[in-house]
Amino acid sequence: MRNYLAIDAGGTSTRAVFFSADGQCHGYGVSGGGNPVSRGIEGASGALIQASLAALGGTDKSFASATVCMAGASLEIPTHLFHQRFAPLGLVGSLMIESDLLGAFYSGTRHDEGYALIAGTGAVAARVSSAKLAAVADGTGWLLGDNGSGFWLGREVLRAVSAALDGRGSFTVLTDMVLADLDIQWDGGSRRQGRVRAQQQLIVKAYALDPIELSRFAPLAFAAGNDETARDILDRAAALLAQTLGAVMEPELSGPMVFGGSVLTKGHAMTAAVVAALQQETRATVMEPVTVGDGVAGAAVLALKRAGEVVDAEVFAAISASLATLRG
Amino acid sequence: MRNYLAIDAGGTSTRAVFFSADGQCHGYGVSGGGNPVSRGIEGASGALIQASLAALGGTDKSFASATVCMAGASLEIPTHLFHQRFAPLGLVGSLMIESDLLGAFYSGTRHDEGYALIAGTGAVAARVSSAKLAAVADGTGWLLGDNGSGFWLGREVLRAVSAALDGRGSFTVLTDMVLADLDIQWDGGSRRQGRVRAQQQLIVKAYALDPIELSRFAPLAFAAGNDETARDILDRAAALLAQTLGAVMEPELSGPMVFGGSVLTKGHAMTAAVVAALQQETRATVMEPVTVGDGVAGAAVLALKRAGEVVDAEVFAAISASLATLRG
Repeated sequence: MRNYLAIDAGGTSTRAVFFSADGQCHGYGVSGGGNPVSRGIEGASGALIQASLAALGGTDKSFASATVCMAGASLEIPTHLFHQRFAPLGLVGSLMIESDLLGAFYSGTRHDEGYALIAGTGAVAARVSSAKLAAVADGTGWLLGDNGSGFWLGREVLRAVSAALDGRGSFTVLTDMVLADLDIQWDGGSRRQGRVRAQQQLIVKAYALDPIELSRFAPLAFAAGNDETARDILDRAAALLAQTLGAVMEPELSGPMVFGGSVLTKGHAMTAAVVAALQQETRATVMEPVTVGDGVAGAAVLALKRAGEVVDAEVFAAISASLATLRG
Repeated sequence: MRNYLAIDAGGTSTRAVFFSADGQCHGYGVSGGGNPVSRGIEGASGALIQASLAALGGTDKSFASATVCMAGASLEIPTHLFHQRFAPLGLVGSLMIESDLLGAFYSGTRHDEGYALIAGTGAVAARVSSAKLAAVADGTGWLLGDNGSGFWLGREVLRAVSAALDGRGSFTVLTDMVLADLDIQWDGGSRRQGRVRAQQQLIVKAYALDPIELSRFAPLAFAAGNDETARDILDRAAALLAQTLGAVMEPELSGPMVFGGSVLTKGHAMTAAVVAALQQETRATVMEPVTVGDGVAGAAVLALKRAGEVVDAEVFAAISASLATLRG
């Protein structure tokens, strides 16, 4: 029975799994960010190798292919830049770079048709057809889109708080939470040159961050309970994510539907809200989504499929179960 | 009769006027950006001096004060950094740094109570009381606010076009205009890795710009005629600008109301839309706004007021008329 290596290379962390064609995972490893666009080829390669060595765990067994799932633009990188680094580890076949969207999709299903919606720092939806990406919507980054993403939520939280401070919006629990998070004292609204002092501090602190770091305020929207402002932000995010998913849907294909990313997996109500908004929009029954934590199981499924191995229900279940055991 | 120098120092251009207490303007000069936050003290000083020398036109007359109107954060800069550079030009009194919001306000009125709404690249509203800024709303920059500004409009244009390309939105005249502007060919929607190729090009070109440069797409919203997407963006901008202005308004003060900035002065319908939205929101009669091109006349009015000179209707009219003549 042949062995394989599969890697889910994310922006902040990388996961690798060493497994056999029956779906049994024998080793698992993690490392830092493995995205070549943000870290460069050298930095990304280092992360891929580090996670792979941990997954291989000193075995002298070879593997028939290495399948690396990465975000969008990385798909254009020549595979030979990575291949030569994996040969010494035991790679006897090819190295394949695949979309992280497919990795996420196959973490939730073994079928070759369906949909994925990922909302982490960014937000993107895909239709999968014949085991390939047939259509992608959004995932256009923080400035152009990523509607309903962690960045989007964090920015809307800060905008709402800024508006509350100068009277364009209402002062709510969320306002207090953000001011406390940023260590800004609310003095009742004193002004300097007409500007509320607390807002001036908010401006200084917000612009000291990289824009993308605004995603760190997203959890406050979830933590604010029934705060009216937070609820409005979350409702709009759900509607936008439903719009993004709706853009790749076709009437004749209802699923399977795989949801991933922290906005959908940690915000429990968000998944239900997206489904409800989608049902209202499409006026059709939407299949119950499967939520997935990351794309490493899917990278393994994809590796087997690309190699022509059969991924039946038993193999798919074996990957999930043995991977869960390795992760402890 | 005493003479004065007044300067309106903007981010991209600086205007100076040399005038006497009766409102007669004797010289006018322009130069590049004079904002110390973006250009540094040296660069900004250079621009202020250049415009001032042109306004003074080689006269050997002294002036009783120099009044410089600048944006927000520049108000904290110690005046002595500028004062020493103006003494050799004939400054015998003090140098004062004032808010550009007051400069804009007094370009439209000689009264000391009222409102200003400025929507250029950014967007901000102020209530003026006793010739000072009593309240300021928004003007919080492109990431936190500036709702309804040129940046906001430009970003919404690009976001709408990006959404149209992948099916989240509708393909309209505005889509064609933006693709033409960015020299992107529309091939009917072919995809690579599921992503529409035209959208991939849009992403590359948009992220190659500084975020603030997205304001250059704002004019396309005005130029798109009755395009549904453009109308929606403009309607939302008007509602947001009305909200910003509404946040500084007090029931007992209906105006005067001064509107400035390219979004309000070049988009003729925008001013009317903001007034209509404001009237709907406040359910009160809103005073007809005076629109102003820039803040140099107001800087002159402010210079006279701070010096204790009387600015009656005659003086105010003289400033406007003689300044218009000098500008040709």
